[in-house]
Amino acid sequence: MSEFHGIIPPLLTPRTERGELDFEGISALVDHLVEGGVQGIFALGSSGEVPYLTSSEREQVLRTALDATQGRVPVLVGISEQSTNRVLDEAERLLSIGGDAAVVTTPFYALSDAGEIEQHFRTVAERVDVPVFAYDIPVRTHSKLPHEVTVRLAHEGILAGVKDSSADDVAFRRLLLQTRDLNEFAVFTGHEAVADGALLGGAAGIVPGLGNVDPAGYVRLYNAAQSGDWAAAASEQDRLARLFEITSAATPGRVSPGAAGLGAFKTALQVMGVIGSNRMTEPMLALNDAEARRVREVISAEGLL
Amino acid sequence: MSEFHGIIPPLLTPRTERGELDFEGISALVDHLVEGGVQGIFALGSSGEVPYLTSSEREQVLRTALDATQGRVPVLVGISEQSTNRVLDEAERLLSIGGDAAVVTTPFYALSDAGEIEQHFRTVAERVDVPVFAYDIPVRTHSKLPHEVTVRLAHEGILAGVKDSSADDVAFRRLLLQTRDLNEFAVFTGHEAVADGALLGGAAGIVPGLGNVDPAGYVRLYNAAQSGDWAAAASEQDRLARLFEITSAATPGRVSPGAAGLGAFKTALQVMGVIGSNRMTEPMLALNDAEARRVREVISAEGLL
Amino acid sequence: MSEFHGIIPPLLTPRTERGELDFEGISALVDHLVEGGVQGIFALGSSGEVPYLTSSEREQVLRTALDATQGRVPVLVGISEQSTNRVLDEAERLLSIGGDAAVVTTPFYALSDAGEIEQHFRTVAERVDVPVFAYDIPVRTHSKLPHEVTVRLAHEGILAGVKDSSADDVAFRRLLLQTRDLNEFAVFTGHEAVADGALLGGAAGIVPGLGNVDPAGYVRLYNAAQSGDWAAAASEQDRLARLFEITSAATPGRVSPGAAGLGAFKTALQVMGVIGSNRMTEPMLALNDAEARRVREVISAEGLL
Amino acid sequence: MSEFHGIIPPLLTPRTERGELDFEGISALVDHLVEGGVQGIFALGSSGEVPYLTSSEREQVLRTALDATQGRVPVLVGISEQSTNRVLDEAERLLSIGGDAAVVTTPFYALSDAGEIEQHFRTVAERVDVPVFAYDIPVRTHSKLPHEVTVRLAHEGILAGVKDSSADDVAFRRLLLQTRDLNEFAVFTGHEAVADGALLGGAAGIVPGLGNVDPAGYVRLYNAAQSGDWAAAASEQDRLARLFEITSAATPGRVSPGAAGLGAFKTALQVMGVIGSNRMTEPMLALNDAEARRVREVISAEGLL
Repeated sequence: MSEFHGIIPPLLTPRTERGELDFEGISALVDHLVEGGVQGIFALGSSGEVPYLTSSEREQVLRTALDATQGRVPVLVGISEQSTNRVLDEAERLLSIGGDAAVVTTPFYALSDAGEIEQHFRTVAERVDVPVFAYDIPVRTHSKLPHEVTVRLAHEGILAGVKDSSADDVAFRRLLLQTRDLNEFAVFTGHEAVADGALLGGAAGIVPGLGNVDPAGYVRLYNAAQSGDWAAAASEQDRLARLFEITSAATPGRVSPGAAGLGAFKTALQVMGVIGSNRMTEPMLALNDAEARRVREVISAEGLL
Repeated sequence: MSEFHGIIPPLLTPRTERGELDFEGISALVDHLVEGGVQGIFALGSSGEVPYLTSSEREQVLRTALDATQGRVPVLVGISEQSTNRVLDEAERLLSIGGDAAVVTTPFYALSDAGEIEQHFRTVAERVDVPVFAYDIPVRTHSKLPHEVTVRLAHEGILAGVKDSSADDVAFRRLLLQTRDLNEFAVFTGHEAVADGALLGGAAGIVPGLGNVDPAGYVRLYNAAQSGDWAAAASEQDRLARLFEITSAATPGRVSPGAAGLGAFKTALQVMGVIGSNRMTEPMLALNDAEARRVREVISAEGLL
Repeated sequence: MSEFHGIIPPLLTPRTERGELDFEGISALVDHLVEGGVQGIFALGSSGEVPYLTSSEREQVLRTALDATQGRVPVLVGISEQSTNRVLDEAERLLSIGGDAAVVTTPFYALSDAGEIEQHFRTVAERVDVPVFAYDIPVRTHSKLPHEVTVRLAHEGILAGVKDSSADDVAFRRLLLQTRDLNEFAVFTGHEAVADGALLGGAAGIVPGLGNVDPAGYVRLYNAAQSGDWAAAASEQDRLARLFEITSAATPGRVSPGAAGLGAFKTALQVMGVIGSNRMTEPMLALNDAEARRVREVISAEGLL
Repeated sequence: MSEFHGIIPPLLTPRTERGELDFEGISALVDHLVEGGVQGIFALGSSGEVPYLTSSEREQVLRTALDATQGRVPVLVGISEQSTNRVLDEAERLLSIGGDAAVVTTPFYALSDAGEIEQHFRTVAERVDVPVFAYDIPVRTHSKLPHEVTVRLAHEGILAGVKDSSADDVAFRRLLLQTRDLNEFAVFTGHEAVADGALLGGAAGIVPGLGNVDPAGYVRLYNAAQSGDWAAAASEQDRLARLFEITSAATPGRVSPGAAGLGAFKTALQVMGVIGSNRMTEPMLALNDAEARRVREVISAEGLL
C-alpha cells in the first residue's frame, strides 16, 4: 500500500471577519482533522480556494498548515498553475517550504492535447523531488486526464497517483483495474458522496471537501471499508451524503456554485466552533444568516452539534 | 421492493448479414438472457439501436421480443421520441402490442427546461396505462433530468422509477437517498462497469448493455449484492469491467463511438454463437475481422468461450 | 445563383386558443410572408415547433402551407428525424404531399461520427427526388456538420446547400470560401441578427425566425446587400437586431429558452393582428400579458404597429 | 472614437532554436507590425503563449515589446490570472514596467457567476491606473462574459472595452448595439476570418493573431471598412481567410490545436524571414518541415513571399 492512503481532506482556508488569512483558524482546522483521525492533509487544493489566493498567501497558508501538522500526518501540496514552466516555478517556491507530495493540475487556460499533458507530467516529475500526483478536475481545467497517459505514467513510476475529481466513475474504475498491480500507485476520489463505491472498487482513499467538517465520519467510512464491513461503510456514506446537503443551503443565484459548497463547509465549521468566521475570499460571498441556519439544521440532524 | 428490479439488459437488435431484422436472432438473444437468469428485458433502448429503427421496425422488434419472452420476465418498452405529443403517439402504438412498463426519454431536439420536463412526464404518465420510468441519458438528449423534478414525481407516485445513464454518480446517490422510503420506486443504473457501487448505494438494479453478452455474470453480481457479499460483488464487477474492454476493440476513428460499443456486444454474441451476424443498422459499420479477433481474445480470457 | 436564395423564413405554427392547429393562422402567416416579398418559405423547421408536432400534425401543417403558398414561392420542407432510415420514411411521407426541397437534419439522439454523417446525406440524397439541404443546428443535434464532409458533398453535387444555425461564423465563412465557385450550392444563415455580415461574406440568403414578424425588413436588408449598399444593409440589420430583443421579453425562468423566442414571435404576430393567438404547443408556455406588453413596446418602437 | 481602435495584433512570442526567449525576434516582429501600419500592439495575449510563460518571462517579453515599440503605437498588456487578487498582483507587477491599457481575463479555474465576474472587473478597474478591457475568451476560461454585466460596466465607464474571442457573433452584435452611444467604449473582435462583418456591425477594431503574419492586409481591410468600401473589405477578408488556412497545415493529432495555430503563424514569419525560428514553448511542438512547406505554399499563393 502506498504511504498515501485513507482520508486526506483538502484543507479549507479560513479567513477572519475582516477578510485576512486566519492563521489560528488554519491551525485549529488542522488539529480538528488530525484529531479526527485523517491519514493526511491536502493543502492548497480547490477546496482551499487556491485559485483565489495570491502567491504570497499560498506560501503563508502552506507554512501555517505545515507548522500546525508538525509531521503527525503527511501534507500534500497543490500546485495549480497554467502550464509546465509555471508549475515548475510554483513547485520550487512552495516545496522549498515543505510538503510530502505535490498534487499537480493538468494544464489549464492553455489548450493542450494528450501528448502535451503526458510531457507536462514527465517534466514536472523529473524536476520535483517529492512524489507527484496528477490532479484531474475537468470542471475547472476543462480537460480530462487521458486514460492511456495516466496508465502509462503509473506503470513507469512517474506518477505516484491521481486525485480524481472528474465525476467519471466508469473511467475511475477502469484506472483502478489497470493499476491494481502497482502497490505504490494510489488513486483517490474527490467525490465525497460516493466514496463507498470507490473504495469497493479499490480506491486508495478519499479527498473529501466535506471531510473538513466531519473527518471522523470519513475515517469511520474508510475503516469500515478496510475491514470489509461494507454495510457499515454504505451506512456511514449515506449519513455523509445527507450531511453533504449543506452544500444546497445557499439560495440559488445569490452566491456562486463554487462559493455555495465551500461556504457551507466554512459555515458548518463556524457553527461547530472550529473556526471563527465563514468569510470567503473576495469576490466570493459568504453564506448569510438564513443560509447558515439551514446548515445548522442539517449538521444538527446528523449529530455534529 | 418494486416488481422491477435486478438485471434488466437492454435488448440488442440483431440483423442478418443482409441487414434485415434477424427475428431468429432476437428470439435466441431473449432466450440467452432469460436462461442467464435476468429479471427483465428492456426492449427498444439505445442499445437496441432504437434511434436507427423505423417505426415499423420498432413494432416488429417489440412483437418478436414479447413472443420470445412469453411472460417469463417483464418486458420494459423504450419510448424514444422528441416531445410529449410524439411520445404519446409512440406509446399508444407500441404499448398496444404489449409490454409491462414504458421507459420514456426526456424531450430531445426540443430545448426544454425543468418545468417542461416535469409536465412532460405528468402528461405521459396520465395517458399511459403501464408504469412509467424516466430515461435519463444526457449524452443523447443533452438535458439532465432535474433532481427536484424526479424526487417530486417519485413521491407523488407518477414515476415508477428511473433508468439512469447520466454518468453522474453523485446525483444518482442523492436520488437514491431521497427516494429510499418509496418501496415502489426503482432506480436503475445503466453503467455496467460500476454497478457494484450503485447497488451498495441502494439501486434497484442494473440495465447493462454488456448484460446481453454475459447475463449470468450480472446475475451473479446482483445476487452477491443481495446477499451482502460485497467482496464477491466487487470481484464479479471487476471481471465484467475487464470484459467491458471489448468496447475498445474497434479501431478508433474507423467506426463511430456508438457503433464501437454496440458492435462489440454483437460481435461477442456472434463469436459465442448466440446470433449469426454482427451487422449494424446503416450507416453504422460493423466490427471487422481484426477487431472481432480482439473481442474474441477478451471474452475468451474472461471465460465466455 | 441557386433557385434557392434570399429570405426564406422558417414558418411558425400558429395554434388556436384551445391549442389546436390554426389553419387560418398558417395561411394568414404565409400571405404575410409572401406579401412581405420573401423568396421562399421553410416549413417544418425548428421555428415551426417541428419537434413538438405529431406526424399527423406535420402533414397537416405542410399541406396547409403548400395550399396557402400556391406556388408563389418555393417551399422547403424540414425533415427532422433521428437517423437515416427514419429520415427516409419521413421524407417519403411528407414529400408525397409536396415541397420543392428537403432540409434534412444530421442524425440526433444517435451518436454519429463524420463518416456516418456523410453516408447519411449520401443515402438521403440518392433516395429523395428534390434538392437536399443539410440542416446544421448543433444546439439541438449536438453534432456539428463536419466541414470536410459538407465541402465534399457540395462539390459532388449531392447537397444543394446548407442551412447553418451553428453559431460558428468562422466555419461559416470557411464554407462560403470553399464553395464559392459552385453556382448551384447555396449557404443560408439561420442567425437573424448578423445576416449583413453573412451576406457580405457571400451567403445565398437568410432563414430568419424573426422574418415571420418582419419579412419586409429582411427583404430590404437582402436587397440592400444585393445592390451593394452595405451601409443600408447594416442599418436595417441594426433595426432588426433591436427588434430581435423581443426574444428577451419573457421572464427568465418562467418559460423555457425555446419557448421564449418562438413565443415572442407568435406574440408579435398576434399583436400585429396576423394570427389570433400566441398559444404554444404543450408543454411550452405562451408569453403572458406582462410579457406581451414588452413585446408590443419593442415592435412599436421599431415601426411595426 | 476611442484611442484604442483599428488593428491591434496579439504579439507572438518568438523563441530561439534552443527554446529561449528571442528578444531580437520580438523586436523584429514589433517592427514588422508597426511598419505594417497597425494601430496598437497587444502584448501577453493568448497568441503570445501567455499561459506558457513564467512570471519572469512575461516581464521580459513586455519590457522588450515596449522598448521596441518606442511609443509609436499604444501597447495593451494582457493580465491572465485565475482570480481578482492574483490579477491585481499581476497587473501591479507588469504595469509598473509600462503599457497603455490592461486586457484582463474573466476568472478561470475558479467557478464564478455573473455577480463575481462583475465585482472582479469593478475591483480591478478601481485599482489599476490604465484603461481596463475585458478579455472574453470562453474557449480558455469556460465562462462567457455576461452580456448584462458588460453593458452595465460599459455605461458606468468602468470598462474601456472588450476583446471578444467568444465566437458568439450574435452576442457580439448585441453588445455593439447597446454600447453604440458610448464613444469611449471599444469592442474588438478576436476572430480574424470574419472581421469584415464585425466592422460592418460597428466594431472598433480587430485583434487578429494572423495579423502578426500580414499586418498590412488587416490594415487594408480596416481602411476599406473605414472608407465605406465594403466590397474591398470583404475581398481583403476573403484573402485573409484563405491565408488563415495555414492554421490547418499541421497534421491533425501530431500537434495540439493550440500549437497548430500559433505554430503556423510562427512558421510563416520564419519563412518570411521576420523571425529566426518557429520554436514553441514546451511542451508545445513546432511545425515540422513537411508542415512548414504547406504553410509556405499558402503564404506564397497569397502574395506574402
